[in-house]
Amino acid sequence: MLLAEVTGSLGSIGYGLAAIGPGVGIGIIFGNGVQAMARQPEATGLIRQNMLLGFALAEALALIGVVMPFVFGK
Amino acid sequence: MLLAEVTGSLGSIGYGLAAIGPGVGIGIIFGNGVQAMARQPEATGLIRQNMLLGFALAEALALIGVVMPFVFGK
Amino acid sequence: MLLAEVTGSLGSIGYGLAAIGPGVGIGIIFGNGVQAMARQPEATGLIRQNMLLGFALAEALALIGVVMPFVFGK
Amino acid sequence: MLLAEVTGSLGSIGYGLAAIGPGVGIGIIFGNGVQAMARQPEATGLIRQNMLLGFALAEALALIGVVMPFVFGK
Amino acid sequence: MLLAEVTGSLGSIGYGLAAIGPGVGIGIIFGNGVQAMARQPEATGLIRQNMLLGFALAEALALIGVVMPFVFGK
Repeated sequence: MLLAEVTGSLGSIGYGLAAIGPGVGIGIIFGNGVQAMARQPEATGLIRQNMLLGFALAEALALIGVVMPFVFGK
Repeated sequence: MLLAEVTGSLGSIGYGLAAIGPGVGIGIIFGNGVQAMARQPEATGLIRQNMLLGFALAEALALIGVVMPFVFGK
Repeated sequence: MLLAEVTGSLGSIGYGLAAIGPGVGIGIIFGNGVQAMARQPEATGLIRQNMLLGFALAEALALIGVVMPFVFGK
Repeated sequence: MLLAEVTGSLGSIGYGLAAIGPGVGIGIIFGNGVQAMARQPEATGLIRQNMLLGFALAEALALIGVVMPFVFGK
Repeated sequence: MLLAEVTGSLGSIGYGLAAIGPGVGIGIIFGNGVQAMARQPEATGLIRQNMLLGFALAEALALIGVVMPFVFGK
């Protein structure tokens, strides 16, 4: 008797969910960043520096989602 | 007889969900922040200070999501 | 015979869901706040005061999500 | 034989879902509110009064989500 | 032998999902409303009247979510 043949770990789903927010967020950061650069091209260095700061802080949320299944049991 | 071979803890899913909001929120903060910097480059210090304040308050929500499974049983 | 090896409490998922809204909301508050500061730097005190009021009211929703599993059974 | 070791009440998930909308909504109200204050600082009293009216009406949706599990069975 | 110890009614989840949309919608109504008031403070009465009309129509969706489980069987 074979019931559902579903395999895999909930860790994959957990990472997938954790990647939704930073994915949208990084898009908003760079989308507004290129708009800001077009408005003030001479401030490109300042804008790029803060864009990458925001990118790193948002990306960290997804990377924590990679290690969580090892913590909680994968 | 093989039933579903699903493993893992609901804690991974809980963290993943808790990371969606801050991920989008941090993106909105930095996206609007670089726009504000391009409009008023001389206010960069004031803007970055409040951006990082908002970042820390939003990030806290995701970090609470890391410890919740230890509270409720992982 | 192997059935699912899934562990954890639904409380973790409940908190994770409750954190999505405030996470996005806090981002919107601070994102618009830094925009407003760049437009009226002399109103920074007034803006920050109302930003933190909105932050506290939105954050409360996530913190209620922390205690709900204790009310409904974790 | 190991079945799932999942515990908790669906009420926690219900509250979590009910908190998403008000969390985002309160953020939109206060985000636009601080923008409006920066545009018309002399109308701060009127704006804050209507911000808090909107906050109370949105928050009510989450608080109904707290009592629903008691109505439907937690 | 350990089975899942999950309790609760799907009615709570149904209400939670029904509250997401109105929660965001009410936020958009009041957020744009206070912006409109700051632009035209003398039209406050007209704006508030229409804000509350929109609020009542959006709120109705969530309140229908309260009675649905009684219709479909809680």
